[in-house]
Amino acid sequence: MLSLYPSLVTIVGTTVNGRPNFTTIAHVGIMDMNTLSLSMNKAHHSNDGIKANKTFSVNIPSEYMIKATDHAGIVSGKDVDKSKLFKVFYGDLKNAPMIEDCPVNMECKLLTVIDYPNHDLFIGEVAQTYAANDVLVNGDIDFEKVRPLLFSMSDKSYHGMGLKLGDCWKIGKNYKK
Amino acid sequence: MLSLYPSLVTIVGTTVNGRPNFTTIAHVGIMDMNTLSLSMNKAHHSNDGIKANKTFSVNIPSEYMIKATDHAGIVSGKDVDKSKLFKVFYGDLKNAPMIEDCPVNMECKLLTVIDYPNHDLFIGEVAQTYAANDVLVNGDIDFEKVRPLLFSMSDKSYHGMGLKLGDCWKIGKNYKK
Repeated sequence: MLSLYPSLVTIVGTTVNGRPNFTTIAHVGIMDMNTLSLSMNKAHHSNDGIKANKTFSVNIPSEYMIKATDHAGIVSGKDVDKSKLFKVFYGDLKNAPMIEDCPVNMECKLLTVIDYPNHDLFIGEVAQTYAANDVLVNGDIDFEKVRPLLFSMSDKSYHGMGLKLGDCWKIGKNYKK
Repeated sequence: MLSLYPSLVTIVGTTVNGRPNFTTIAHVGIMDMNTLSLSMNKAHHSNDGIKANKTFSVNIPSEYMIKATDHAGIVSGKDVDKSKLFKVFYGDLKNAPMIEDCPVNMECKLLTVIDYPNHDLFIGEVAQTYAANDVLVNGDIDFEKVRPLLFSMSDKSYHGMGLKLGDCWKIGKNYKK
């Protein structure tokens, strides 16, 4: 049993049959400096859009968007038009709709798809990242200001990001067992 | 710029030249039900061990292990013997050393390696998961009890897991824009 939690909650934006669609995905991965993966159950409507357009967006919602985020993961674009669920903007890729309310948005080009029995594993390259001014500190994204949502599988719940506990490559410098 | 943070902090265990070695990796991904990815800079000593043995472990450290966790990510097994840094146990795979103090341990078989310019992307299958009794609730891992560490790239810091904010597939059920 794979137990890599909590994991970051994202909303993936696609164009399906000419219309923006969104679905909530907490199974993302960092593969290389600019390369990410999305593990998406084959039942998702969004998968068709990614395969057709070779583009998608990854948006990071804030805590205050918890209800809309959850909703996007409950209802399927096969049954419900989710194109009006969020205010949308576009970057260079034209058919990777991004969510204005999300403080961080990445528009991505599809590199390849790995075909697992129940999931399509989409590997994509980030073409451009957009961030709201109020989460930037000296030009960098401050994730404390983003207030992202984290998904815990055990109790099927959303958690916030906790307090800072220490500096990386520093707090353990002189550690001895 | 890829901005998928905060991300879960793990300690990867390997056998390199017959000796246990450990390195701290926060760039992991969930690929399929039982398949995960580790993005590891090619400079890591551990990469040789994974390629040689086709096995590795992924261990989730608790907050109280922050100094040892950070230390494992600062010093290289090329320069320092890290085999005694943690108390080790083994499962079925024999050469995937796991860390007793970490409340969650997964021993993994290597499936494939994707060769990126600066990183080896190891894709592995979880052979077995071990969890400490005190983080289990009705047989499931309770990540609140695990008290995992999260890595934020912007300020190069470790954060804790925050409070529960709501239930998935529930809190947004009746959401309307």
